[in-house]
Amino acid sequence: MRAALMYGAGDVRVANVPDPTIQEPTDAIIRVTYACVCGSDLHPYHDLEDTPDGRPMGHEAIGVIEEIGSEINRLAVGQTVIVPFAFSDNTCSFCREGITTSCKHGGFFDGLETGATQAERLRVPQADGTAVVIPEGTDESLMPSLLTLSDVYLTGYHAAVRGGVGAGTSVAVVGDGAVGLSAVLAAKQLGAETIILMGRHESRTDLGRAFGATDVVAERGEEGIARVLGLTDGEGVHVVLEAVGHMPAYEQSYGIVRPGGTISRVGVPQYDNAAVGFASLFGKNVTLTGGPATVRAYLEAAIPQVLDGTIDPGRVFDRALPLDEIAEAYRLMDSREALKVLIRP
Amino acid sequence: MRAALMYGAGDVRVANVPDPTIQEPTDAIIRVTYACVCGSDLHPYHDLEDTPDGRPMGHEAIGVIEEIGSEINRLAVGQTVIVPFAFSDNTCSFCREGITTSCKHGGFFDGLETGATQAERLRVPQADGTAVVIPEGTDESLMPSLLTLSDVYLTGYHAAVRGGVGAGTSVAVVGDGAVGLSAVLAAKQLGAETIILMGRHESRTDLGRAFGATDVVAERGEEGIARVLGLTDGEGVHVVLEAVGHMPAYEQSYGIVRPGGTISRVGVPQYDNAAVGFASLFGKNVTLTGGPATVRAYLEAAIPQVLDGTIDPGRVFDRALPLDEIAEAYRLMDSREALKVLIRP
Repeated sequence: MRAALMYGAGDVRVANVPDPTIQEPTDAIIRVTYACVCGSDLHPYHDLEDTPDGRPMGHEAIGVIEEIGSEINRLAVGQTVIVPFAFSDNTCSFCREGITTSCKHGGFFDGLETGATQAERLRVPQADGTAVVIPEGTDESLMPSLLTLSDVYLTGYHAAVRGGVGAGTSVAVVGDGAVGLSAVLAAKQLGAETIILMGRHESRTDLGRAFGATDVVAERGEEGIARVLGLTDGEGVHVVLEAVGHMPAYEQSYGIVRPGGTISRVGVPQYDNAAVGFASLFGKNVTLTGGPATVRAYLEAAIPQVLDGTIDPGRVFDRALPLDEIAEAYRLMDSREALKVLIRP
Repeated sequence: MRAALMYGAGDVRVANVPDPTIQEPTDAIIRVTYACVCGSDLHPYHDLEDTPDGRPMGHEAIGVIEEIGSEINRLAVGQTVIVPFAFSDNTCSFCREGITTSCKHGGFFDGLETGATQAERLRVPQADGTAVVIPEGTDESLMPSLLTLSDVYLTGYHAAVRGGVGAGTSVAVVGDGAVGLSAVLAAKQLGAETIILMGRHESRTDLGRAFGATDVVAERGEEGIARVLGLTDGEGVHVVLEAVGHMPAYEQSYGIVRPGGTISRVGVPQYDNAAVGFASLFGKNVTLTGGPATVRAYLEAAIPQVLDGTIDPGRVFDRALPLDEIAEAYRLMDSREALKVLIRP
């Protein structure tokens, strides 16, 4: 089959690789019909060492089941499914508590030990627990929005849920990438009253306004903090949804959160240590939460919301390309010419 | 009046100082009938620079109102009141959200800008919002337990509340000082099922067991983490109540918390930066919360629990001394000969 492989920083190409096969009786093989490029795919795009054999890329997918292992009970060949970016058995004690990304038999589609989704076919481990069926006859026009339930929209949703966003909450979203815009949409869904989007790319913040942002703050650093405080009677917001992962975003977050408020991170932190002492978090009774989105735990409830038009998170896709043009897809996202690129294998 | 003054590390003495007076119409003056020494008083006892004029000490008090300012409406001369370690107007937006330690007109009885409680008299700023009346005729034997509502018990309670302890929660308490033991009692009150107390002083952990600890782990570091994991099917606890404030306690906390769990800190952090990245908090979706206890927000509900015998947090006091022996009180606590010393001015 054809698959996107990354051979080093800035070097993604389509190559012919062996088709995946059933390795465990709990596996399924899908033919990938929709995939995409994630902001986090740009990290190796910037710094991957030379990898002569190539690293399989991508972790978001919709596909059609082609083959199932002998212990698969919930799925059947021919069904169209959403595959979350992490696989999980959905039965262990951590999954039952909703923390599916910590599943005792789970893992990530990281292209290292598993395959990856920017490819014609994908092996789905723990498929009964992982894959969720899209109803037969679903309109193809809804597939981009359904694909966002594999990661990006539900990552924004995870930030809002872990942050405790609810009716009347004031929220600030740090970052106007696809996850940040998804967090705006999720906060709106959960009843947030004020949603301040911190971002400086107007085409993106315009979509943020369409998703429910009540205010946009383009400034960063001390100036950005002052602007958010100015919008909140000097008090700060109840919840900050941090969708970047770099230290300036973290520092911005504790500058704008109100006493007793919450910073919820879903941008994978590109740092190990950060300020947590009296002057940053402790003195104000600020809560720091977040982590890898437990997409699987939210999926059944989110699919009907897409099907009935309650949410349209697929608007984050502003380009679509065939798998053969994967290099262009990465280039467009890296240069910020595209917000998020849909891939059709 | 007589008051405890600290002149430098290890040097606390009683001196004659001017009586406090009403400075703002929202002040009240109380005659302190019960005070005590807090673990946090030991920080300056270890490292206070030479202070020739002396620093007033203490922030926990019960007292009788002797004088009130012209804008006091809720209090009357002669009433016995509990004074939380932080004063607050109890009406500003942060107070209304329960974060009384961030009150816009509030502050701490830190002996710097305000007076302090290891003294015969105390000026209570924002007295209408701060002081809570103890019913007339309350038995003197309950006063030590009521005094713990000024700080230590409700600090343990704050840890448990912010940590989300509820029915069936598994909890670990890091630290067997008076706050840690209070956290055990509070976790029990809130319905925790498993309460693992991490501490190595047997007389203290025995009181912890009396307060509701189901297990005691004396080991620290990696060994302590392994013991807690062993007690929880290798999964870790839902909530860690961190009542120490030093880095090893923080590291212990993220080693024993389960995925999706919460670390709630009430030990004032003696560090500014700490691990918060993928390997410590983020990857496991761990929440970090806590801060200065919002004692005032819990006080009305806690007083009846003491009066009807539901809780007996005053058991943390294992010694009582007159104010004149304040130096001995500090020495006993610093040497760990006493858990917590009650002071009778």
